[in-house]
Parts: sequence; C-alpha cells; structure tokens
Amino acid sequence: MSETHGSLPPAPAAVGQLTLAEKAALVSGSDFWHTTPVERLGIPAIMVSDGPHGLRTQLSEADHVGLSGSVPATCFPPAAGIASSWNTRLIETVGRALGTEARRWGVSVVLGPGVNIKRSPLCGRNFEYYSEDPFLAGRLGAALVRGVQSQGVGTSVKHFAANNQEDDRLRVSAEVDERTLREIYLPAFEHIVRTEQPWTVMCAYNKVNGTYASEHRRLLTTVLREEWGFAGLVVSDWGAVHDRVRSLEAGLDLEMPPNLELSPAAVVAAVREGWLAESVLDDAVARVLTLVDRSTSAIGAADAEPVTFDEDEHHRVAHLAALESAVLLKNERGALPLRTEPGATVAVVGELARTPRFQGGGSSEVNPTRVDVPVEELRDRLGSDVEIVFAPGYGLGGEAADGAAGEDERLRSEAVRVARAADRVVVFLGLPAAEESEGFDRTHLDLPAGQLALLAALREANDRPLTVVLSNGSAVRTSTWDGDADAILESWLSGQAAGGAVADLLTGRANPSGKLAETIPVRLEDSSSFLNFPGDSGVVRYGEGVFVGYRAHDRSAQEVSYPFGHGLSYTTFDVGGLSVRTSGSVAGDDLAVEVSVTVTNTGPLAGAEVVQVYVRDPECSVTRPVRELKGFAKVALEPGESRTATMTLDRRAFAYWSVRHHDWVVEAGDFEIAVGTSSRDLRAATTIRLDAPSIALPLTADSTLAEWLADPRGNELLQGLDLPILRDPGLVRVVGTMPMSTLASFPGLGLDHATLADLGTRLDRATS
Amino acid sequence: MSETHGSLPPAPAAVGQLTLAEKAALVSGSDFWHTTPVERLGIPAIMVSDGPHGLRTQLSEADHVGLSGSVPATCFPPAAGIASSWNTRLIETVGRALGTEARRWGVSVVLGPGVNIKRSPLCGRNFEYYSEDPFLAGRLGAALVRGVQSQGVGTSVKHFAANNQEDDRLRVSAEVDERTLREIYLPAFEHIVRTEQPWTVMCAYNKVNGTYASEHRRLLTTVLREEWGFAGLVVSDWGAVHDRVRSLEAGLDLEMPPNLELSPAAVVAAVREGWLAESVLDDAVARVLTLVDRSTSAIGAADAEPVTFDEDEHHRVAHLAALESAVLLKNERGALPLRTEPGATVAVVGELARTPRFQGGGSSEVNPTRVDVPVEELRDRLGSDVEIVFAPGYGLGGEAADGAAGEDERLRSEAVRVARAADRVVVFLGLPAAEESEGFDRTHLDLPAGQLALLAALREANDRPLTVVLSNGSAVRTSTWDGDADAILESWLSGQAAGGAVADLLTGRANPSGKLAETIPVRLEDSSSFLNFPGDSGVVRYGEGVFVGYRAHDRSAQEVSYPFGHGLSYTTFDVGGLSVRTSGSVAGDDLAVEVSVTVTNTGPLAGAEVVQVYVRDPECSVTRPVRELKGFAKVALEPGESRTATMTLDRRAFAYWSVRHHDWVVEAGDFEIAVGTSSRDLRAATTIRLDAPSIALPLTADSTLAEWLADPRGNELLQGLDLPILRDPGLVRVVGTMPMSTLASFPGLGLDHATLADLGTRLDRATS
Repeated sequence: MSETHGSLPPAPAAVGQLTLAEKAALVSGSDFWHTTPVERLGIPAIMVSDGPHGLRTQLSEADHVGLSGSVPATCFPPAAGIASSWNTRLIETVGRALGTEARRWGVSVVLGPGVNIKRSPLCGRNFEYYSEDPFLAGRLGAALVRGVQSQGVGTSVKHFAANNQEDDRLRVSAEVDERTLREIYLPAFEHIVRTEQPWTVMCAYNKVNGTYASEHRRLLTTVLREEWGFAGLVVSDWGAVHDRVRSLEAGLDLEMPPNLELSPAAVVAAVREGWLAESVLDDAVARVLTLVDRSTSAIGAADAEPVTFDEDEHHRVAHLAALESAVLLKNERGALPLRTEPGATVAVVGELARTPRFQGGGSSEVNPTRVDVPVEELRDRLGSDVEIVFAPGYGLGGEAADGAAGEDERLRSEAVRVARAADRVVVFLGLPAAEESEGFDRTHLDLPAGQLALLAALREANDRPLTVVLSNGSAVRTSTWDGDADAILESWLSGQAAGGAVADLLTGRANPSGKLAETIPVRLEDSSSFLNFPGDSGVVRYGEGVFVGYRAHDRSAQEVSYPFGHGLSYTTFDVGGLSVRTSGSVAGDDLAVEVSVTVTNTGPLAGAEVVQVYVRDPECSVTRPVRELKGFAKVALEPGESRTATMTLDRRAFAYWSVRHHDWVVEAGDFEIAVGTSSRDLRAATTIRLDAPSIALPLTADSTLAEWLADPRGNELLQGLDLPILRDPGLVRVVGTMPMSTLASFPGLGLDHATLADLGTRLDRATS
Repeated sequence: MSETHGSLPPAPAAVGQLTLAEKAALVSGSDFWHTTPVERLGIPAIMVSDGPHGLRTQLSEADHVGLSGSVPATCFPPAAGIASSWNTRLIETVGRALGTEARRWGVSVVLGPGVNIKRSPLCGRNFEYYSEDPFLAGRLGAALVRGVQSQGVGTSVKHFAANNQEDDRLRVSAEVDERTLREIYLPAFEHIVRTEQPWTVMCAYNKVNGTYASEHRRLLTTVLREEWGFAGLVVSDWGAVHDRVRSLEAGLDLEMPPNLELSPAAVVAAVREGWLAESVLDDAVARVLTLVDRSTSAIGAADAEPVTFDEDEHHRVAHLAALESAVLLKNERGALPLRTEPGATVAVVGELARTPRFQGGGSSEVNPTRVDVPVEELRDRLGSDVEIVFAPGYGLGGEAADGAAGEDERLRSEAVRVARAADRVVVFLGLPAAEESEGFDRTHLDLPAGQLALLAALREANDRPLTVVLSNGSAVRTSTWDGDADAILESWLSGQAAGGAVADLLTGRANPSGKLAETIPVRLEDSSSFLNFPGDSGVVRYGEGVFVGYRAHDRSAQEVSYPFGHGLSYTTFDVGGLSVRTSGSVAGDDLAVEVSVTVTNTGPLAGAEVVQVYVRDPECSVTRPVRELKGFAKVALEPGESRTATMTLDRRAFAYWSVRHHDWVVEAGDFEIAVGTSSRDLRAATTIRLDAPSIALPLTADSTLAEWLADPRGNELLQGLDLPILRDPGLVRVVGTMPMSTLASFPGLGLDHATLADLGTRLDRATS
C-alpha cells in the first residue's frame, strides 16, 4: 500500500519574522469569523463562513455564539437533499456557485461539506450530512470541494471524526473500533483528502475512544497527514478546543473562535517554559500563513473587479439541484404526475405547502435570497384550467404542534371539507423545525401525530389518488401510514427553490431521478445503533461495528420500508449487458475492474437512472457486509435511448481493514459484483476471481489444533506424530480450538513442548 | 454499599514446612484429575471430576485430553433442562444426589455449575448453562452449590468470566464494558459467592478485554476476593493457563491439568530470581492445602463406611427433575395430554423417540447408569388398550443427517404411511449430537431439514392432533413450522430419565410446569448479539451491552416465538392480589420490598405455576432494560387451592451499575413492579416510590449550559448574569450541549472565565 506523507508547503517566509506572541495569536482567530492579522508584516485577516449549502456570512456578531443574522445568500439543498441526486456534476456546480457567493462577501473558506456518516436516523444534524454510506458520502463531498475550491475559495471538510450525534456532542466519547473507523467513519474524509486536498479539515467536538478529536494526534496527524497526505490546515469546530497546547501538539493548527482570554497566553507560556516545542507552533503558524496566502493570492489574481453573483442564476442552480434531490418513493394508481382534466380540482393540504421548510436549524441556516412557495408554484404550473384549493390542515407551532389539539382538529376538519370533492389530493407533511436541528437529536422517527391524523382523515374522506410530499432532514417512519398514500415524494430539505422543483415534479414538468442515500427503516428499533444511541454517561458505544445503514439491514435480513439506493421515475429503465474487465493486480496495487452496464430508457419520458455497483466477498476470514456500494453512475436518457455506463473499481473496493495486519487486505477468491437500481433491486450480477497475496498468519504454538490440521504441511507434520487423539474426529472437533501449546501442556498426550518446538522448526524449513 | 473483604482461612501449618519445589508443585495438579500429594507431610492428593449434571469420573486417562471413558453415574438434566424448572429446591436435591455420587468415587470437587449467560442461542455449550438472565442463573446455580456442598463435596463455579461462546474460546477476547459485566455477566457468580461460598471458582479460557481470564487480577482478586469476599480457591479451566507465574500473581491458585514440563520450574525460577513474591505463592499453596483439608476432613468425618448410592433412587430424582425441565410451549386442539379411546392408535415418530438425546457432548458427558427410551415409556404408560405404532422418520447420522437424502426420503415415506391412520401423532424432533457440543458453536437455529420435511409430510397426511416433542440444548427456531404442530413440548436435554418424564407429561400422569429460561426468538437475526457473534480476528465485541435475551427483545419491541418465562400447564391459574410492603431504605442498604401475590389453581388438575417479579425503572439517567427479573416463586397447587407467594427484593433489585460512581446506584423515584407468568404475560403491576441519595454530579465548568439551566441554583445564578443568548430559547436549545467553559471561551458572549469561576464559587457557597 502506497502512502503519501503529508509535507508542508515551504513555510512562508514570515514565520521567521514573527514574535512568539504573534505566533501564539495566529494559531487562534481574532474573532468569531476571522483569523488574526499581523499588520506590521502586512498579514491580513481572512474570513471564514458557515455554509455547506449556502453562505452564512455574519458581518456583525449579533448573538456572540455565531448563530443569528447573516447576509442574504442562495440556500441550495442541504446535504441530505442533494445527496439523493447521486450526481457529482450537479454538486460540483452548486459548489462553484457557493464559491462565487463566498467571493462576493470576501469569504476565504466555506465551512463544509459535512461528511459524517448517518449512524442513526435520529441524529439532529443528519440533514447536513450526505449518507449512511461512506463511499457515496466521499464522492459527493469531493464534488462539493472541487466546485468551491475551483473558485479560489477553501473548504473545511467536517467534522473529523466520528461525530454522529448531537446529544452531549461536546463531551461524549465515541467508542469505535479501528476496523469500523477505517471502513465506515473515515473513508469519506480519506477520499476527499486524497483526491481534492481541501484547504482545511475541521476537527469534531466529541472524543474518539476517550480523547477529544481536537487533541487526537493519531487522527489529526498520523492518519490525516502522514497516511493520507493532507497538506492543508486543521481548524477546530467552534469551541472544540479544551487545551490549546495539547491540541497544537496533536496537530490542530487554528483554534476558532479564539479563546482570547486563555489560549495565546497559554501557548506563549508553554513555549517559554519548554513544554511545547516552538517548531510545533511554527508548523501550525506556517499552515495558517499558507492558508492566508492561498486565499489572498486567489483573490488578488481574480478580484480586480468586485465579485458579484446573479441571484436569479443561482436560484436556477438551486432549482436544478432541488429537482434531483427529491425521491419518488412510491407511485401507485397513476397518482403522479398529476394529470388532470380541465376543470378538475386539486386539493393542496398542509401548512408546509404554504410555509415550506427547506433547510435545518443551527450553524448552517442560510438567510435565503428568495423562497419558492409550493402551493403558489403549483398554481403556476397547473394554470387556470385547474382549480387548486388549499387548506393548512395543521399548525407548525414547534413543540406545540401536537399540543394545540383543538386548533388542530379545526384545521383538520376544514382540510377534509376542502379536499372531500377534489379530483386529486396532495398533502404536504414533514418535520417542524423544532423537531430537527443542530444541537439535539430526535427521539423517534414519527411525523407529528396531528399530521398523521390529517392524512388518515383525508384518506377516509376521498379515495381518489392521494400524494404525500415529505419535507424532513432525515428519515421519517412511513410504515404506519404508507397504505394511506398512493404516491410519496420525499423532497427532504431542498433549499430555497424546493417549492418550484416539487411543483415541476408533481406536474410532470420534470421527472424524479433521486435515489435514497439513507435507508427508510420500518421502525426505529430496526436501526442497528438503536441499543446504543445516543449512549450513556458520556460514552456512546458503536456496538454495531461496520453494520451501519443498509449494511445492517442486509446482514440481519430485515425488511425495510424503502431501501438504500431506491427511487422511482415516471419512465422505466432496462439495465443489462453487464460486463467486467479486469486489469492490474491486487499485489501490484494497480487493480482496475471496469464494470460496464447498459441502461435503456424503455418508457415514454426522458429521465435518469442511477446504476449502482455493489461488491460482495462471499467468503472471508472476517464477517463482511452482504454488499457494499463501490461505484455508481447517473445516466440521463431520452425515451428509447441506451447508454453504457462504465465504473472502475480499484483494489480498495474489494478490501477490508484488517486489525491483524493493520492495513487494507484483499483476500484472494471470488467476489460478486452486482449492478442494481437500488441496494435491493439488483438487476445483474457476475463473479470475478481475484488473486491476492496470502494473508495467512504463520502456524505457531498459539495456532489451534484445527488450524494446524487445516494447513496441508501442518497436517502432514502432525499426522507424523501419530497422536491418539487424532484418531477420534469427534474429539478433534471438541478440542480443535485448543492452541497447540495448550495441548502440549496436557500430561500424557504424547505431544510435549520440545516436540511442538521441533514441529515449528520443520514447518519453517518447509515454508522457507 | 458494604463490602466483605475476602480473608484467607488460617494458612495450614504445612505451608511453612514445604520446600519451594513442593510449593511450586502444589499449585499445579499432579495429573488430569488430581492435586499434587506431598507424601512426606502426609498431604494427600484429592480428585476432582467434571459433572455439573452427573459425575464424569475418569479412573484412567484414556484419551489424555480428559474426554472419554468414565464410571457409570446418574445423568441428571443438564442446566438448560433443569433451569426450566425454576425450582431451587429441586436443584438442591439434585445437588445432594450429585454430592453423594461424588463421595462414592472419592471425588472432592465437582466441576460445576456453569453459570455463564446465554448471550447467543448459538453457543455450543448453552446446554451446560442456565439462562439468559443473571438473576435466574445465580439463584439456580446457588441451589446446586448448596446441594453438592451439603454432602462435604466442593463445587467449582465456572467459567469466570464472560465465556459465552465456544468459537476460538481459548484465545478470543470478550470486549465488554464495565456496566455490562456487572449487570449481566458477573451477577450469577457474585450471588453464589456471596451466599454459598463455593469451595472453588474456575477461571475461563478466554480473554476479558484483552487479558486472559487466568491472568486477570481484577477479576480473580479485586472483584472476586476483595469485593465479594470469596474465601475459596481459584482453579483454571483445563488448559487455561498460559503463564503460570502471571496467573499466580493474578490470583489463580491451582493450574489444571498441570503443565508439568514448564509450570513448576517456572514458579521456582520466578521466586528464586525475585520476579514473584514468595508470599503470593504461599497464599495459593495455603488455599490448595485448605481445599485438601476441607475435603479430607469432610470425608474423614463421614466416610467411616464406604459411601454407596442407590441407583434407583437417583434415577427417580433424575426423573423428577426431568418432569420439571420440560416446557409446554403450545397446546391447541386438546392435543395434550393424550386422551385416547380404548383401541386408539398413537403414532410415535422420530428416531429420537427410540434413541433419545438427553445430554450434550464434551467435558460434561456422563456415562449414564441407565436410559429411559421414550417410545418404550409411552407404551408402558398408555397400556395395551392403545396401539403405539413407531417409525424412525429420519436418521441421526450426525453431519450426514441431511446428507443421506435417499435414505431420509424412505424413512419419511414409511413414517407417513405408519402415521396416516393414527388417532394421535407424536413426533420427536431435535438436534443431533453432531450439531451441538462443547468445542464449537452452532451457525443457525434450525432443526435438520430432514426432520422439518418429515413434520410437514406428517401434517399433510394426518390432520388429527399432532404433538412435537423437542430435544435440544439451546433454542431452536420454531417459527417456520409452528403452524404444523398443535402442541409443542420442549424437553431440552433432560438427562437419563427424560424418556419416562416425557411419557408422564404426554399422557397426563404429570402436569408440565417448566418455564423458559431463555427466549425462543423468531429468527437468529433477532438475537441482539447477532452482528457480533462469534467475533472476528480474536475479538468479540459485546456490542449489545446489557441488552441480552429478553432485555433486548423487550427494548427493541421485537416479536418472539416464545418469551422468557413462558410455559403452559394442563390446568389454569389465577394470579392476583398483588401487594407490596416496603421497609428499610436505599440509603441504609437495608431496603426490603416484600412482594406478595396470590396464585389460585382454577383448573381441574394439580399443577404448579411460577410467578415472576419484574422491576422497571421508568425514568433514569441511563438507558435501562424495560423489565428485569428480580424474584420468582414456584407454587404447587391442588385444584381450587390458593397460596400467597412472597418474594423480597433488596436494594440491588432496583440498582444499575454506574460507571460514573463505580458502584451500584439506585435513582430516587418511581419503580414499577409487575408480576406475571412470563416476561410478556404480566398479570398485575404496581408502582412504588423509593427515596435514594442524590447521584447528581456537582455543576462545574465542564457542565453544559443545559445542565446549569436545569439546576435551580445554577439557573438562578446564570439568570443573574443577564446573558443575551438566554433570551432566545431556540438558541439555548441549539447550544445547550456546550459546556460552560466552552461558552466562556467565546469572545464577546458576556461570560468570561473569571465570571464563570465566580459562578462556581457562589454555587459552592450555596450548596455547602
């Protein structure tokens, strides 16, 4: 396995000219959003802003925790929405637009993307994360980084690492074993670092196996820089630093916001008193200066003219992104698209159709340039031939949503009355903002009871095709009411243009092409972290190991409501002609398995299908997931059109992290490659055979009788001893787990330690 | 919490007279089953034997791994069977009989009971363990210890600790957190040690959190002796010692069998060269000599005459025990008891009716004094008025059971022919010996396919009442065929008298009273250890934590085939009149909650019901099981009879292990006490309120904003600061998880570190 060692760019010359106090000041910011300037050397401050899906640039520090009031910016779909696009080019486009808006406000680094894994659907910040799958999260996150950074603006890939809940997030220790970290929680970061070199990486608030991420040298330096070759700067999550000196030693370059009262003085004292090597500080300072240089020279080169951006054009990008963010979960009885005779009535029900929820709360909350309102957009699309009747049906009063029972009942009756005679019913349901935000986790997966009562009442009142449109940032349970809906369009939280996009999708002006980036389970209890989420007493055990999301549901052969990768279209696709061409080798680390598959649009409309490649290792010395996503391609096709998509799988696609070898290991043998349109709708599969270096550990005295007997040479040597126990297969089965050294310690067995040592010598001779 | 510190009995005088070599020899045995004698001092060897459910005394060392050939002995029901009795007096009686047989053969210590928890139904040795519940396992194990030791014979409570699988059992590390150890895997040992002082405890083969149990000082000394007050001897499982010196230091007194080649010399060298304090060796020697003394003086006092035992009488005890070991899972269409008209035909099908399986393989396998054959016993019970026709239906050829398809088909056709016209069909199904044994785990829960095909064919051929009798040592899946059986009698592996007992139960000469000591899940995948069993790469993560068995199924609201505690009778019981009387207090550690309940036999037959007390803590700072067994009583009643059972719950019944306090903690508040006839058939419940010392941790700078606001005094102090953020409840919700020290580090928030320190001082003043 090749490792690129992270090397510092040449230290900016200024490092040598700085006083100790200036250096200590530079490795913390100067205020909430700015680095520290050094005026006497002409080192400017640069500004950073929240904004994985839209800039949240604060020009003042209104609330002093950095959470309220920001300049207007385009609110693109949050990660949970845009992840459903499975479209890296789209995300790159959004990234470019984000970069431009950053330039408009002089923002040097956009604090995103968030690529943490959705370990539990309850995590309050899931709307800011892409997926339960690390391969998908890595590819989508890389696209955003590519887009933003193409504009000379940096990104901050966050939150590194194992920040998978909001509950007690500043103190909790994520107890997660090495293989699980390597296979599930780190690969998205790894892929982005290796392929895109993000300008910065943001460390997480939480502890990882007992050590604060901000002080986790193995994560911030050994893995991130030395193994993956990260050359950028590590910034703290806002308030993640507890001990500035320890965090510097671990590899955390920039503390944000600055703990002005304590940190600079502590750093100066530590260097003066010899607890902290000045070279460690210098490295961090160099990285800060490099970041400042990088930003100012990018701006210097391009921004001779003030940067502006076209709000309309960016809204159009947000609209395109929202179109691909929606997932058509279900479509029966011809419910969608809404095809109505002139004079027909469409009932649009739900406060969310009038007051859309299109982003989540917390540090990513954008002040949008405009907001499309679904019911208005629907009126626009359906025209005057169709009558739209609207009723709110429920309130969105935060915690009180279920509380105001009398008011809810009144709204429900009104909605039923309005919808009773309609030819089509479209119900907008979703999570109120108060139920889903950065800062706390959900405790259940259900929609508010008042909304579900509304749906049941509408279903009872009107048996014509009924469509549910969902707005929520993480999976909600559908299994309890799925039967009441003929169609379900999951629109997630999809940014300021979501309303128009949903109108286009409902009316057939656009064809849904989104695919689930997270499973919708039948029940919360089915999610594999259920017994261990969000943990107790400051500890959360990742007890499910690598079995997260579909990896768990598949391993446990569990029914799900809608599987990972699922999403319907108004047209139909044929997927076939699977072919696989292998070149290179595992041993040479140049393995390339080209998987080609032909997709044909067999229906009447233009549309796009996402073909997904899943790999399975049917026989392995460790327990592996039933299937893992290792490639995907989104193919847009006109009716009747065919295209061949080719996805290339490298060595890693077949590897697992071996705790015995402390490395990625591919075990020689068969691998099944399946191509599907969801993780549970596999259309074609084939098996390839890979050669790989043997990973067998040498037989030793600690190897068991069964292991010796399973090894041809070991078996031969053992048989030569003519031990009486070997003549009784039943007995061998019972004592087979005993190490040879244990058997050698049994009196009278005929195998003494000297004989065992001799066996070892003869074995070494035979194999050397 | 009071702690009894384990104190050594006065060291036998002989310790001082022994040479170093003699002492080193004494802490290992002399051969497979004997301690080391020291003839010059008149110290005899004593003999130990396998035998939790029957003596396996080897007079020679036939196979030199101690597994074949032993003297005839009564085979009582293995633990999995007798645990279903929930009858401690019965188990004590069996223990006395075992003790007598031990005396007959000069056995000083019987190597049992095994009280490991059934973490997974797959564990190959589950048949030797009692339950998935630690309370039940502890009470039943204590009864066996009481019975055996009443005869002047020692026991060895095993395998200490966390030995819950056979796979790689000599090397695997059980990775289990402290709370889970304390609440699930240790309490059975703890209860037996505290209440019965077993002569010996046997350490497990496996590692616990990376350290071999045989070298685990915290387990063998800190917890076992210092916390629980164990005063006996710790012996190794056979071959569990890897480093005799390290194991001595950890508290392992006696190595068995002796590693004669290495151990004594290593101990001598370690003492001579100063690596091992001689006092450590002396303590172990003293414990060995005390054990020898204890045994020889018990024998000396009683065995003036040679001990004999009455095989018939012991067979009768085995029969009584087998009667209570069977669990009537299901009984529909009047299938049981078999009530037949004179001249009726009963088809008895299944090789297991002729060749019963009544115990498991491995170290506990007894050479029985006789074996009851079910089909013969049934003939005897049903008399000549009823015709019994028999067909084997399938073979028991171990691995080949499913392989010999042609032969199976022939047997199946024959069975169908024989059974087609019968008035009643009784099918004996179960696991062949090759599928279940010490030394390896099962990989699935299914009965052999040939047996299931037989059942389906019989059901199709004959729609009169059909009964399935099961013989298996751990749960088998019933959900796939349950509908084909009108009645199911789970007889487990119930010893040499099982055949007669089953005949009595089927014919109504006896009334089933067994209750499940382990859940029968719908699918293997539903068992909470599924994703982590049996582990990989030498490690098994106990990722499910305390959620084992019914604790997991209840927490996950999972359907099960038959719940923990379930078992039917031929009569009916009313359970009511629940009353609870509380005395003492949590703080005083003398809490006594007397739970009384009246059971009435409302049916036509004598029978026995097991009332079960479950405790629930509805609100707690840590996640707790939905309910936990904390008391039970078996009540035998004539028709119409009523009795009141009283069970006393102590402080521990309400406590959880707090990792923050490193102690058992009861949180003040409500506790629900429910009484039922299974864990899912709760007949009455009440709520009590317990006072308890506050366990709140003091507010500090590391406490979060939310924690400060939740504390009345903290809230008051904070409000006094008039921080702007406190005026925005939504913002408080988002930043509530931030520690005060983090907020104090934010520039401009109005809370600096000095103010925070001042808050702390004022808080201390307020609370002191």
